[in-house]
Amino acid sequence: MKLENCPIPQSGYSLITLAHGGGGLLSHRLFEQVFLPAFDNEYLRETHDGAVLPQIHGPLAITTDAHVVQPLVFPGGDIGTLAVCGSLNDLAMCGAEPKYLSMSFILEEGLPIEVLQKIVESIAKTARAEKVVIVTGDTKVVEKGRCEGMYISTTAIGEIKAPNKICPQQIQSGDVLILSSDIARHGMAVMSCRPGFQFESGITSDCGSLWPAVQALLQEKVQIHCLRDLTRGGLAAGATELSKASGFEFEVHEEQIPVQNNVRAACEIFGLDPIHVANEGCFLAVVAATDADRCVRILQAQNGTALARKIGFVTEAKGSAHVWIKGAFGQRRMLILPTGEQLPRIC
Amino acid sequence: MKLENCPIPQSGYSLITLAHGGGGLLSHRLFEQVFLPAFDNEYLRETHDGAVLPQIHGPLAITTDAHVVQPLVFPGGDIGTLAVCGSLNDLAMCGAEPKYLSMSFILEEGLPIEVLQKIVESIAKTARAEKVVIVTGDTKVVEKGRCEGMYISTTAIGEIKAPNKICPQQIQSGDVLILSSDIARHGMAVMSCRPGFQFESGITSDCGSLWPAVQALLQEKVQIHCLRDLTRGGLAAGATELSKASGFEFEVHEEQIPVQNNVRAACEIFGLDPIHVANEGCFLAVVAATDADRCVRILQAQNGTALARKIGFVTEAKGSAHVWIKGAFGQRRMLILPTGEQLPRIC
Repeated sequence: MKLENCPIPQSGYSLITLAHGGGGLLSHRLFEQVFLPAFDNEYLRETHDGAVLPQIHGPLAITTDAHVVQPLVFPGGDIGTLAVCGSLNDLAMCGAEPKYLSMSFILEEGLPIEVLQKIVESIAKTARAEKVVIVTGDTKVVEKGRCEGMYISTTAIGEIKAPNKICPQQIQSGDVLILSSDIARHGMAVMSCRPGFQFESGITSDCGSLWPAVQALLQEKVQIHCLRDLTRGGLAAGATELSKASGFEFEVHEEQIPVQNNVRAACEIFGLDPIHVANEGCFLAVVAATDADRCVRILQAQNGTALARKIGFVTEAKGSAHVWIKGAFGQRRMLILPTGEQLPRIC
Repeated sequence: MKLENCPIPQSGYSLITLAHGGGGLLSHRLFEQVFLPAFDNEYLRETHDGAVLPQIHGPLAITTDAHVVQPLVFPGGDIGTLAVCGSLNDLAMCGAEPKYLSMSFILEEGLPIEVLQKIVESIAKTARAEKVVIVTGDTKVVEKGRCEGMYISTTAIGEIKAPNKICPQQIQSGDVLILSSDIARHGMAVMSCRPGFQFESGITSDCGSLWPAVQALLQEKVQIHCLRDLTRGGLAAGATELSKASGFEFEVHEEQIPVQNNVRAACEIFGLDPIHVANEGCFLAVVAATDADRCVRILQAQNGTALARKIGFVTEAKGSAHVWIKGAFGQRRMLILPTGEQLPRIC
């Protein structure tokens, strides 16, 4: 009789069972043997229903993301690094320094505990590097097939460090659009390892934290009007959303958008336009024209944003709210939001 | 050709497609047509990556829960009421007044949008009644079969109202254990409508918010040392966890624990002990002996906790940390944490 099928729980389980999510002995063991050692901190050690955190000074930033990426591990990261960076990046886009994380795990029955442990270690490592504390969480287990390994939902709490509000409504005519790095790496890295799709590409995800770059801009008092990380839907979705929310037309110069050669080649094979492909460590900054060059220089001096450059500007036209993209030969086309789904579950 | 199979997105979708989670046009429509009208507030209307909230005074309480209940709708509630109340109750157990909620949805491809709409309405109604604002969220869609309708993760943020810390480490020898209501209704209500299990029982879930009851205790300055809502694993898991975390032995008197007749009957049919069955609107309060009677009277005057009563006490024995349960005939047995899983996915 295999240990996993034995109705009497033992400590030596190697696979996740439904009982690991039942709130009983195995749930406790999972917490004590997997989560607590990795995330260890005073809040989790209290083993209470929630965490009580010290006062946050000033306004509070909060963001939530569900992560369902498939496969769980991809070139350049895994669902764990993604779950931490994805939420921290959303905070950074509000001009907030990340402080605390909460994480809820939905695990699939039969998931090797070893796989969970690796993801948990990767979460812990990323959180430590970004100086955020995982203060509370939850774990549920669903029957085999009702999830793919694991889904992770993260909520991040941060302290606003920006002197002015950073949001789409702050965008002004004449502002400059600055792209922090080359695009489309994350989407193509995940695509390169999807079952049935695999191809050798050498592409690695850009999955990483954007707070250091934003922090550098804030410290140098760059007049940032809006920030948007270019995840699902890529640069196209990000720019279109900001244009719509601000009510201004944007003009983007296609030849200014950096794309790695191997990424461009992979996109061509699949007939994808890189501006629609997801990123996990790339953002669009909308800054006052007077500060644009300085903003680019500051970003270029930071790790991960060395390729930062101006890619366009906010026009004077208000009301229609479209993004116009100008090609290398001067042709001008309107960007539209992707309507179908190129590739599900890249985050 | 059915509308759902058409590659050109139309506005008349009646089922969730993968593209609703892709960050493109359909994601936007879902937000604007389903989530925004129901949850409408200034934070969501900004359509930014995160929300910036006014300063929270004093320490901050935070809690997270994943909800995977099956079926999505059960007698007395649905996954929406559960997702709101579950998180608010965890906050209440810290002595915190709930203020804000974030919600992340993992939806199954093929889910009728009508079903999502009903759950979203139920979330909005519960949140309004409890005066909490849903400030941020996320939606992902996974392939058909990779989820069961929907999973919802909630994070709640609250303001601490308790003058002293409420946590297991505050429990003292001589403290009285007060149970807020009858037990085992939620677990048996969900069981009564599980596919393959259905039975006519008339049992409805106790799913509801515990903050009004806790608020009443705080307003009357009852010396609360610890609170625990008795969800997964029921009273048995709650009491055992508190005993273990505090290091004290508890004694519980079985005949003092109220159980509705139909709940008791259903438990007998399935061979379950009600103390192991989940609740979603019931808590255990550990209070100073001098305040115990007053605590019971205050709870009995509140909606939903009319059956509150003393069920035991914290003994002087420290170190072994067991819960002893005393039966109607004076027999004494040690409570152990449930090890297997009676019924998965009751929350």
